[in-house]
This record gives sequence, C-alpha cells and structure tokens, in this order.
Amino acid sequence: MKRVMLTVAYDGTNYCGWQIQPNGITIEETLNRHLSRLLREPVRVSGASRTDAGVHALGNLCVFDTETRIPAEKICYAVNQSLPPDIVAQKSQEVPLDFHPRKWESVKTYEYTVYNQPLPNPVARLYSYFVYRPLDVERMRRAAAFLVGEHDFQSFCSAGSQVETTVRTVYSLEVDQEGPRIRIRITGSGFLYNMVRIIAGTLLRVGSGFWEPEKAGEILAARDRAAAGPTAPAKGLCLMEIRLKNPPFS
Amino acid sequence: MKRVMLTVAYDGTNYCGWQIQPNGITIEETLNRHLSRLLREPVRVSGASRTDAGVHALGNLCVFDTETRIPAEKICYAVNQSLPPDIVAQKSQEVPLDFHPRKWESVKTYEYTVYNQPLPNPVARLYSYFVYRPLDVERMRRAAAFLVGEHDFQSFCSAGSQVETTVRTVYSLEVDQEGPRIRIRITGSGFLYNMVRIIAGTLLRVGSGFWEPEKAGEILAARDRAAAGPTAPAKGLCLMEIRLKNPPFS
Repeated sequence: MKRVMLTVAYDGTNYCGWQIQPNGITIEETLNRHLSRLLREPVRVSGASRTDAGVHALGNLCVFDTETRIPAEKICYAVNQSLPPDIVAQKSQEVPLDFHPRKWESVKTYEYTVYNQPLPNPVARLYSYFVYRPLDVERMRRAAAFLVGEHDFQSFCSAGSQVETTVRTVYSLEVDQEGPRIRIRITGSGFLYNMVRIIAGTLLRVGSGFWEPEKAGEILAARDRAAAGPTAPAKGLCLMEIRLKNPPFS
Repeated sequence: MKRVMLTVAYDGTNYCGWQIQPNGITIEETLNRHLSRLLREPVRVSGASRTDAGVHALGNLCVFDTETRIPAEKICYAVNQSLPPDIVAQKSQEVPLDFHPRKWESVKTYEYTVYNQPLPNPVARLYSYFVYRPLDVERMRRAAAFLVGEHDFQSFCSAGSQVETTVRTVYSLEVDQEGPRIRIRITGSGFLYNMVRIIAGTLLRVGSGFWEPEKAGEILAARDRAAAGPTAPAKGLCLMEIRLKNPPFS
C-alpha cells in the first residue's frame, strides 16, 4: 500500500463544495468515483481544506491510500482523462503512510476577487463578486493592516464551527487593483469557518465608505460575529495554494 | 420613433453565436425577446458583429428602432433586470435613425487568450484555449509583425465567406504574457470570417516551434487558406471593443 497526495484544481460553480453530502454532487465524491474506477479499488480521498459550495480552488490537497502499481506521479494524468473538465488534478506524489496535509503545518493562500464597475461583466461573473458602488482600495488596504498578525478572529468566524481556539495568524493581507478587478489576497497558517469571506465582506464595507478603516480594529476587539461585515459570496473565493512547511518528502 | 444603440457584453459559452438560427438559442434572439417584452412592441436588433458560437464579447454593438418613451440611456438598466446573467447591456444611447455601426468606420479590438501550462486550469477553461506545449512568446511576436498593416488576408479567411475583397488593415497585433496566460490582442478596421482565430492558430504553430516566424509572411503571400494554421477554438476569443470613428452623436 502507498499513500498518494493529489493537488487538485476545480471550478466550484457546479458543486456543493468539497465534502460529501446527501443532497448534491461534491468534489470529494467525484474524485472518489473517478479514482476508484481508475485504480479498480474503493478509494476515499481525505482533503486538506473542505471548501464551501461555489468556492474555487487552484491548489487544494488531498491524500488517499491505494494498492495500485501505477506510479504515484502518473495518477494525476491518468485520472484527468476521465474527470469532468471543471476538476483537474495538477500533481500526484507519494507521501509517507502517516502523512496528512491537514495535520501538517502549512501556509494557505486565498484570493477573493471583486469586480467593481457600474455594470456587471458576464465573462467574470462566475469567478468574482460584482460590486457597482465605487470602492476605495486605499481605504481597504488601511483596514486590512489591522488584521495582519496573530489575533483572536472570533468576530470573523461563522457560528456553527467547533474549534478549540479562534486565535489565528494572518501573515499578509493585500488588496490589489487592476482595472475593474480588485483582488484581496490573504495568507495564513489556517482560517476559521468563513473567515476569508467575512474579512472580504468587511473590507468591502470600508471600501464603499460605509465604515472607516479603523473599524477593522474595533471589530477584532469585539470578538462578536455581529460586529463584522457580511459574508461575501462564495463565487469570489479561490483557494490558491497550500504550501507545506518542510514536508517529509521532496 | 427613435433608434437606440446598445453596447452589449456576453459570455458566449451557452449560445449558438449572435445570429438567429433555427437550431439553438442565440444572443440576437435573446435580446429581441427581452427588449420586446420591456418595450411592449416587437423589437429586432441589428448587430455590428455577428460573433460565432462560443465567442465572447465585452463590447459588441447593435441598434434597434422603438416607439418607447423610456429614455434611450435608461433602456440598458431596464433590460438588464430581465436578461440572463450571461448577457449584460453595458450602455444604451439614441443615435440618428439612419445610423448603423456595421456601416460606420470603426476600430475593432479582439483578444484571443491562451492558457499555457502543463495541465489545464479549470477556472480559466471557458475563456481560454489550453495549450500544454510550451510557447515562445517572442517567436509569436516576430510572426505577428508580418501581419500588421494592409495586406490581402485571403490565407486567413475561412471558406464560405462572401466578400468583395480580402484586403484588410491590421493596426496592431500584440502578444503579451502574464504567468500562464498569453493574450493575442488585435485591432483593425474589419476582419474576415474566422480571421482572428486563424491568426491565433498560426501564431500558436510558430510559438510551439512547429513553424519559423518568417512563415507568417509566406502564408500571407500564398493567398491560400490551406497555407495558414488551424482555426483556434472559439472559446478563447473575445470581441473587446468596437470604437466608432467620429460618430454623428456624442
């Protein structure tokens, strides 16, 4: 037996998120079905990040165990032959049998994309959140600065998550503009449930002038979800990369 | 009666192109249906560019005549309330009753997007052509230089088009790379049937090393469609803008 780690990219538009659930097709079950058919054994993947319905990913990670004699690094090319075009395995590699990317220290990068002009762009609609109110990126940057570092992010965590602590470290939080596209790029060791989307929703309130940038610091201090902005829509979010720190393989 | 010009953006993925046809939904008929319902009279739009099935647009133009008392500039906001999310009117304005953007001198800009990396990106798949062979952008630029200017583009015109002359002027043809995305941007006064897609297919042959850049000049001289590269897939193409030269309105 060997353990294989798969780097997987997907367009979340037509999926009910990563995790298997009774009412709708998910990324996890689609991977299981195609890997099981390819490897001729029941395969169950275990993901590093259980992205929500509609969220996209360029570099999510998962592992699975298999008896196959197909070399680990060839599995991604083989499974791509049958996977639907909105899920593409980017890499496959053998890892130690006890390795799991969710339990390993890593730096995760998410991007939240906003499309900011008076009328929507149909070609961008599936991968960005359309905002017609003019946004001030400089204000968003000033608000973002309050959130960088180790903080209790309880205000930026949706109810229903069960975690021991709501303290997390944000390594960087950048806001970039390129024409009508505004990209919020955040890196951290880990994120609470809906944390990136609530941060995006909060920065958008600041960008539109509804709140002052200093409000971001007050929201942190409040430790209350009701103090923060709304959860921005899923389709603007993309899990860009999970970079493992000194992994036990090359 | 007044004539209204509509600037329209659309995601061509789910349409059989612009022009009304018996077997499939088109942009033209969708606009007719929604404008007729809004204005409570039969509306027939007439387009500046009849884009092919699967081709996208950010700034196609069309005109229609109407008896409505709704101000011309408000029609785009009103019709967007009922249009599907993959078609968005960007602007509406009154123009002279005898004005037609297809008959007026203009500068058209198209972009052809290629996604060039070893494995496809599912999030880019609907709006770019995936090419896994590494492409040399510098070679593509050298080939592109042969096509700028006034030339007989018969080699870059699909059979079946009925035009008086195949001489056209390309004002600029730029090839830009940003990470795995390669964008071919072309401006001209007008283009032959499939001309931009055949130019893209030809530049890709040069970029992959199959042809030398100088081949582009030989293809022009051959005046034979069989000499050029293949017609690149529709989904990579987007009609960016039709800029009217000194239009008779502001």
